[in-house]
Formats: sequence, structure tokens, C-alpha cells
Amino acid sequence: MVQLTPTPSYSITVQVQIPNYAGMLARVVQAIGEAGGSIGDVDVVRRDRTSVIRDITIDTASQDHADTIVQALKDQPEIQVLSVKDRTFELHQGGKLITISKLPLQSQDELAMAYTPGVGRICMAIANDPERVYELTIKKTTVAVVTDGSAVLGLGNIGPEAALPVMEGKALLFREFGQLNAFPICLATQDVDEIVETVKRLAPVFGGINLEDISAPRCFEIEARLQRELNIPVFHDDQHGTAIVVLAALTNAFKLVGKSLETVKIVINGAGAAGIAIARLLQKAGATTIWMCDRQGILSTTDITLTPEQRLFAIESSGSLTDALKGAHVFIGVSGPGALTPDMIRGMAKDPIVFAMANPVPEIQPELAKGLVAVMATGRSDYPNQINNVLAFPGIFRGALHCRAASITTRMHLEAAHAIAALVSPQELTAEHIIPSVFDKRVSDAVAAAVEQAAREEGVAQC
Amino acid sequence: MVQLTPTPSYSITVQVQIPNYAGMLARVVQAIGEAGGSIGDVDVVRRDRTSVIRDITIDTASQDHADTIVQALKDQPEIQVLSVKDRTFELHQGGKLITISKLPLQSQDELAMAYTPGVGRICMAIANDPERVYELTIKKTTVAVVTDGSAVLGLGNIGPEAALPVMEGKALLFREFGQLNAFPICLATQDVDEIVETVKRLAPVFGGINLEDISAPRCFEIEARLQRELNIPVFHDDQHGTAIVVLAALTNAFKLVGKSLETVKIVINGAGAAGIAIARLLQKAGATTIWMCDRQGILSTTDITLTPEQRLFAIESSGSLTDALKGAHVFIGVSGPGALTPDMIRGMAKDPIVFAMANPVPEIQPELAKGLVAVMATGRSDYPNQINNVLAFPGIFRGALHCRAASITTRMHLEAAHAIAALVSPQELTAEHIIPSVFDKRVSDAVAAAVEQAAREEGVAQC
Repeated sequence: MVQLTPTPSYSITVQVQIPNYAGMLARVVQAIGEAGGSIGDVDVVRRDRTSVIRDITIDTASQDHADTIVQALKDQPEIQVLSVKDRTFELHQGGKLITISKLPLQSQDELAMAYTPGVGRICMAIANDPERVYELTIKKTTVAVVTDGSAVLGLGNIGPEAALPVMEGKALLFREFGQLNAFPICLATQDVDEIVETVKRLAPVFGGINLEDISAPRCFEIEARLQRELNIPVFHDDQHGTAIVVLAALTNAFKLVGKSLETVKIVINGAGAAGIAIARLLQKAGATTIWMCDRQGILSTTDITLTPEQRLFAIESSGSLTDALKGAHVFIGVSGPGALTPDMIRGMAKDPIVFAMANPVPEIQPELAKGLVAVMATGRSDYPNQINNVLAFPGIFRGALHCRAASITTRMHLEAAHAIAALVSPQELTAEHIIPSVFDKRVSDAVAAAVEQAAREEGVAQC
Repeated sequence: MVQLTPTPSYSITVQVQIPNYAGMLARVVQAIGEAGGSIGDVDVVRRDRTSVIRDITIDTASQDHADTIVQALKDQPEIQVLSVKDRTFELHQGGKLITISKLPLQSQDELAMAYTPGVGRICMAIANDPERVYELTIKKTTVAVVTDGSAVLGLGNIGPEAALPVMEGKALLFREFGQLNAFPICLATQDVDEIVETVKRLAPVFGGINLEDISAPRCFEIEARLQRELNIPVFHDDQHGTAIVVLAALTNAFKLVGKSLETVKIVINGAGAAGIAIARLLQKAGATTIWMCDRQGILSTTDITLTPEQRLFAIESSGSLTDALKGAHVFIGVSGPGALTPDMIRGMAKDPIVFAMANPVPEIQPELAKGLVAVMATGRSDYPNQINNVLAFPGIFRGALHCRAASITTRMHLEAAHAIAALVSPQELTAEHIIPSVFDKRVSDAVAAAVEQAAREEGVAQC
């Protein structure tokens, strides 16, 4: 039922050798196209009188799909498949992050300043005035990306080693979009007390702690305790990053349909870290009617298995997601593929807003929702309105670190969401453009400025 | 008594404005020279008909000396000092290390491979085959530079924040000389159990652990326990790095004086981590007569305050360093400035070898030892024969990580020392050149190759 579209995350580079005469490349391209592959770069590797070797980059929909496409090429007479490379795996060889020096270290003089004996003077300056660690080291611009590997993407509890590629990726995004250092910390423990004490012991090097992919409800306690016990900002991105971008997108979606947070009924499907955080932030922003659902349906006050965080959003009713959505104005999905059906949308109020953010396969494919919704957003880059945390966390940390915020408050979350929403001007605002692109260079600056100002107004800025 | 020489670690950049006529610069230069400053770059910042503004870089010997030089300039008529910048502090603004991406992240396609959703495939590959963390992440090429700030350089227990500039510097050296990632981990605990458990919890991200500036005797237990409980190499550089380079230098020094480890009497002054490690390695390399001294003199078996590690090198005698040195062939100092006097050297055997490695001020200034010693080495870059750990640790880790050595064995230490020594050819070998320069590009490769081969022969290589 769920139709997968080719994506760069399943792209392959196939090296083929074909006879060097007209029409041969067309046959290659046609074979790939018929098998459903999406062709990118087509490069000549070597050409002589009789044959051509080409590297062809092909987006596919899955590993199986890639295999099918390669087989389709192998089935062609005269076409020889020399090699098949998985581009995502190629790109991950040896990891993605590198640590380098900001300074040249080519001479004895440079060494003598950056390392011994010169560095000793810097150490003593900090020993004599601990505040100077913010001036004379990387601390002020460095974020720890901390996980225990317990809830990695939608993949579950795969452990700290398997989580490392995500944390490296996150560190790159901090550099690319926030001009910050970041380093992955993947902990070989999933015990709340041990995680808290370990992060506290690591804190001297870091200006901020980004918690990532830690399962609920543990993540709530870990974040709260760390924030209480450290004087640097602690931010669980899966919660607040998601909530901030959802609020930004929702703010703009409401402008299109002429509704407001205060008066709508919102259904959130998925009662994990992200779902709870979205509910909390929307409530702070003024939402009055939020129904949360999980796999069992509506979170009900009669359900004794709910966590304390979930209980706050339980209602004195029960039923299925279909029941919850009756007359609802907004669906927010942080659940799994296919959780939402066209029929469920038909039960919603007029001009429904649907954020189907399950990744990589949303709660409903936009193709199926077409014509039924007023505004639709997903977590994917290949559809309009991508709800992507990268719009929030780099600027959040940049702003918080710049003013040495002791914590990241709800007010800062709200102002960040507002800043993101405000970057889509009334002229640009359409159902297919409610949120800026992740490549919009203004985003990180706007978020950082809003966060810093909020920190100062809240009195949590320390410089 | 101890005469300090100007060094880049105390260099300043003075901006002066002087009238634009012949002879004025000469007056500036003369004033600096008379005050004992050593002039480097002299740059024109701006020049007009009447005046010139110049940046003058001056190596000084201390903060007081720098102040004296600036005052000497201010005392000159017609010379205006516009600003004085401390170059070492300038260079440390904002820290020295940055984390960057190995890949471009400019397009949605690149993001989709390096981060979600593509990265999920990499995570699953590691979850299904944990060994692949070495192929698909930074682990195989990444070293943790771990300290608790308890024995930083010669500065003592200044804590984790004040230690950070050294750890950043060390991380740079790993990149520059070992082509490895390294990241500073400065722990807010000095409890042995807590340090061990914290490092174990961090280990998933790292291919090796470099312990740094942790005080003795705690460092011995921390290293031993971590090495026992982790299957990645653990290396306390203050111990083994120093010992390896000393052994390399000593090997070559012996060639010059026609002596050998087996037959000489060696006195080591300083019974901390480095002193103990040097004694241990020299013993493994064949030394038979090693006397150790600390501030109280010869380590004696009657001294009940010795640690277990020190006790192994205690002898059934007692006395001062002067006593210990009578008839000794080698002095190795890992102690403090001025600990060795010319008279003590006069008491040594013929053709004494003196390694005065206290930093930044050696046990004896080379000028004072001149004519009394056959071979002299220090820890400083501004005298011949610099004993510098950077000759060892980058190659050690590169070799160990490349073959995924489970540990770094004494055999690997010995082979590393041998490889370093062998880089000084018989033709090059002189009393002023017993050890390669830290900028000799061959060193890291030679050490890495020797270490890897030893690891394979020892059976600790895991790939």
C-alpha cells in the first residue's frame, strides 16, 4: 500500500561497460527507468573506440529495489555491470567528522605558543580566574551530542556504537548550520543515574549539552536533572527541537486557514518524547484542546500504565485515533508509517492541517492526502514543508552559548518558534511553503538572536 | 642564577607609532634590544608622510620582562605605544580546536545520505554487525585525550577546566603529527573509580584512550584498570611517551660515548609518573643499575612513604642526588629547575650524559653544563636534542589503531623507541643531534609501522 519513492539515502553508483555506439546509453537509461530508478550523474570513466565505462548514480527506494535495478541492467545484452557501490555506505567510510587545528603548527614558535611551554600560561590564567575558560578554550562554542543509543531515529534501542553515525551527523549539522563545535558522546550505559553523573563529569569541556535519541520517559528525568545540576544549557532535541519547529509551522498554517491555537482541537499521535514535548509547548503557546493518542488510541485517565508525563495529557474519554480525529482541526504525527488514513482525514473538521512526521515513511503519504487537507507537512525533504529540527537546534545553541544562558527556557523555545515562522513573509506564505528551507541561511541567525534576547529577558544569560 | 632566554611563549606584539624619518626604527629596535627582547616580524600597519604605525613582534622571557620592554619603548621620546598584545593569549582566543565535516552538506541529497534518513541504514549495519563501527564511523581514527587536571604540565593540580588548553593542544598534535582525530575529555572528578568508570562509559566513540596529566600514583592504577577492562589501547603519555623518547635518545647517546645500557649506572631524578615509567622501560631494555631520586634524595628501601611503584626502584642505601650521581654515567631529570649543578656533573663518570627535561626551565641550563657533558638533551625546542613526546604518541596511536591493537605493550614501546633512534643515521649522529626533529615527517610513519608490527608479533592486533 505504502509506495516508496527513490531517495538519495538508497542511492547507488553502478559502473557499467557498454559498447561505444549510438543508442547504447539510451538502453541503459531506459532499463533503469523501467525498473523505477531515478538517475543522477552519468560520468564517463574511460572511453575507447569500442567501449565506454560509465559511473551512473541512481536513487532507489530500498535495498531490494536497488538489487532489482542492478539485475535489470545485468539482464541487458552487451551491458556489463563492473561494480555497484552504495553511496551512503561509501560516504560513511571512516566516519564523517574530523577534528583539526584552527592554527598553523608548522614551526617551533607556533608549537611553543599552542602547546608547551606557552600553553602553561593559559592554564594558569584559567586556574586563577575560572571564568576565562570561556575566553581561552573551545568551551564557549562546543556542544556535546550525548546519547545512550536507546531510541535511535525510529530504529529503537540499538546501543551506543550503532548510534554513533547519527551523532556524528548531528555534530556536522552543528558546525554547518550553527558554526559550533560538536562532538559525539555515546555512552555505554542506559542507567539514568549513571548517565547524569557521567555527563556532569564531562561538562568542563562543553558549553552546552544536546541530548539525543534517549528513550522516554528516561529522557525527561535525565534532562531535568542535568539542567538542575549544571550551569550550562541542556537541551533534548528530540523533544524541544521538534516541538519548536512544529509550533513554527503550525503558526503559519493557521494564518492560511484563519484559525488559532486557542480555539482548535489538536490530535497528537505518538506519546513518546517528541509527542509529549509538542503537547507541552503548544499548551504554553496557548493551545487549549490537545488529545494525545498512542498505539492503543486516546490517552485515557483510566489507563494506569501511563507515565506521569503522559497522564498530564490524558482525558476522561477513550477511543481510537479515528475517534480522536472526529472534528479535529490539526493532526500531528510522531508515530509510524501509515498510521493515518484518508478516511480518518475525512472525519476531521474543515480545512484540516496534517503534519505527518514519521521518518522515513510518514503517517500518510502526501499523495494520498492530496485534496483532503488544507496544509500538509512531513519530515521529508522530498515533499513541501519539511519539519526538520535543523531549523531550530543550531540557532538555539548558538544563541544560548553566546550569552552563556544557564538553561534553555520555555520562553526561549517559544521565541525560537516565532523567529522561524516569521521568516516566511505573508507574500511567500502558501500551503506548500509554511516553513523556511533548512538551507535558508537566515534561519540560524534569526533563531540565535531570538533565543539570546529571550535569555536576557528571562535573566538566564550569564554574560 | 637561572637565566631565562626570550621565548615565543612569552612573545608580544607591540603596535608603535613613530615619526616617519630615517633612524627612528633603529631607535625602536635598539630600545628593545637593550631591554633584552628578541625581535621577530616588523610589519607596517599604516604609513603617511609624517608617521608610521608598525606591529613589532618581540619574544620576551617572562611577563615582567615583557612589561620592562614595553616600558623601555614608552620611555623613548617621539615613540608612541598604541597597543600591546600577548601573542600566546591572542592565539588562544576561543580555543584551538575545531570539529568539521569531511563531507559537503550543501544539498538535500548530501544531507539525506549523511543524516536522516540515509544514516539509519548505517546504524542498522552496525547494530547487525558491531565490528562495522570501525569501518563506518570515526571510532577507528579517534583518540580521547583524558585528564582530571591533577598534574598539569609542571603546574600541579589545577583542575579540569584549567587543563583544557593543554588537552586541546594535544588533540591538535594528534591531527598534525598522527593524522588522527582527538578530542579533549576533562573530567570533573579525581576519584580513581569514577575516572575508570567514566572512561569506560565513553569508550564506544573512541579507538584509543590517551591519559594525560594525571598525578602519580593514581595514574598507574587508572591506566592498568582501564587497559584490563577495555579492548582498545590505553596509553598514559606522561609515562610511556616520555620513556620511549628517552630510550631512543639514550640509545643514540650511547653510540657516541661507546657505552651500553647493560653496563652503565643511571640516575633518574624525579620519581613521579614519568620517572617511574622511564626506569621501567630502561630496565626492560636491559639497564641493570638505576638509582632513583626525589626531593628527599635516593629512594631508599627504608623509606616507608614510598608508593609500591617507587619501592621497586628503591635501593639499600640513602643519600642526596649528589651522592647518587657519584660515578654515574647518565643523569635523567624529570624534576624541576636548577636541580642539577655543575659540581654534581663533575662527580659523574667520564663522558656523562645529561637529559635535563624539566619544562620550561631544565634541571641545569645547557650553558652551565657546557664542557662538562658528552651529550646533553632538554625538553626545550631552543636547545639541541629536544626530548619531546610528540615524537612518540602520534605514531604509537596511529600504529595501534590501524591494527586495532587491544593494548599497547612494552614490546611496542621498545620498538617505537628503536624506530625513533634509527632515524638518526650514523652519518648524522653527533652530540647535538641524537634525536630527530619533531618536524621530521618520517617519525610518525616509522613509529606507526614499528608499533603495528610489534602488535602483530605480540598477538594483540585485532585486524
